[in-house]
Amino acid sequence: MIPSRDRRAGDDFDWPAGRPFIIGVAGGSGSGKTTISTSIIEHIGAERVALISHDAYYRHRSHLSYEERNRVNYDHPDSLETELMLVHLDAIAAGHSIELPVYDFSRHLRRPDTVTVHSRPVIMIEGILILADPRLREVMDLRVYVDTDPDLRVLRRLERDMRERGRSFESVVAQYHATVRPMHLQFVEPSKRHADVLIPEGYNRDAVGALVSMIRDVLARLGRS
Amino acid sequence: MIPSRDRRAGDDFDWPAGRPFIIGVAGGSGSGKTTISTSIIEHIGAERVALISHDAYYRHRSHLSYEERNRVNYDHPDSLETELMLVHLDAIAAGHSIELPVYDFSRHLRRPDTVTVHSRPVIMIEGILILADPRLREVMDLRVYVDTDPDLRVLRRLERDMRERGRSFESVVAQYHATVRPMHLQFVEPSKRHADVLIPEGYNRDAVGALVSMIRDVLARLGRS
Repeated sequence: MIPSRDRRAGDDFDWPAGRPFIIGVAGGSGSGKTTISTSIIEHIGAERVALISHDAYYRHRSHLSYEERNRVNYDHPDSLETELMLVHLDAIAAGHSIELPVYDFSRHLRRPDTVTVHSRPVIMIEGILILADPRLREVMDLRVYVDTDPDLRVLRRLERDMRERGRSFESVVAQYHATVRPMHLQFVEPSKRHADVLIPEGYNRDAVGALVSMIRDVLARLGRS
Repeated sequence: MIPSRDRRAGDDFDWPAGRPFIIGVAGGSGSGKTTISTSIIEHIGAERVALISHDAYYRHRSHLSYEERNRVNYDHPDSLETELMLVHLDAIAAGHSIELPVYDFSRHLRRPDTVTVHSRPVIMIEGILILADPRLREVMDLRVYVDTDPDLRVLRRLERDMRERGRSFESVVAQYHATVRPMHLQFVEPSKRHADVLIPEGYNRDAVGALVSMIRDVLARLGRS
């Protein structure tokens, strides 16, 4: 178990000495959370931050046919192997490396290879549903939610899926109505309540600057202890 | 004029060298913004932060009778002498001291005495309407909005006004319907859009911790330059 901070003990922003600082960045599909996470890492330096996406933990459902896998609701929390992510977070928080799964979105299967992720002073976890899971919330030292209006989010999702993934307008819209939107309303939107800090309107330079400053201070304090 | 940062120039959280860092904390009546501001100052140290409340700048309407002054809508932006606050912010940002007005809420008049506020590396401005004014927004390096649900805000306002100011339940409710709520919906709630960072649910230890860390880093960088 990752030693979590005692939230009742005083007002200071402290975490158990000797373990990495864990920051979570959540937000709906198309909210801009990936842009924010990567921008923070660019400023802090990849040698000091490990990024772990919840997305990497989509379940490996090799017992299902391709057609059956295509019908899975990938916007529901059950589609993710969060148990494994928690084991990995335990390990990386203790200073060990992990083997991050690699998911093949076109085949809806985990690939046989993995990516080695080394422990760093700051661990950033990112995903649509990370604030919806109480076990993940418990692990985080700071919970950030990128709160972007739904019209902007759906436009960004359309642009991304049509341009980068070659999908048709109709198929993106159908999936949006079938699973993305209902799961957002059921799981993602209510999870906002658990955030410590909200960032409005996707990428926001000053919010990123504030988080970068915050992490710099955390690193300075880690260096001192 | 306070030199403002060029928001288009890169992604870093920088402000013109040599002038204090200006952080604004807004939020509706009863949102908990004062608790958050004072908690941040406690952690950073009052010798490093100057706090300037928008409230101190209520207009001195000595040409009106007490009855007329009682009918003024004190939740409207026009009730505040923001022009004077901007002059003061200019001065304090340039390293000068200012004479902060002292407002007598029982008489609805400015008192003849003032409070000297010295310039500090960090200037915190606080008020319900500070994000509603484009001139104040332009001055701030970071805009924070404390976003607390309206039911919690009205309860906190009732508790405060009944306990600390000896007012009746009925008079607080009447004022809430007459000016507090309509002005909130017209001016405060829409100003949330201009925040860089939102803090949900009033006092939040981790959000305060994050802001304290952010300010510590800013101070470290001021010290270096």
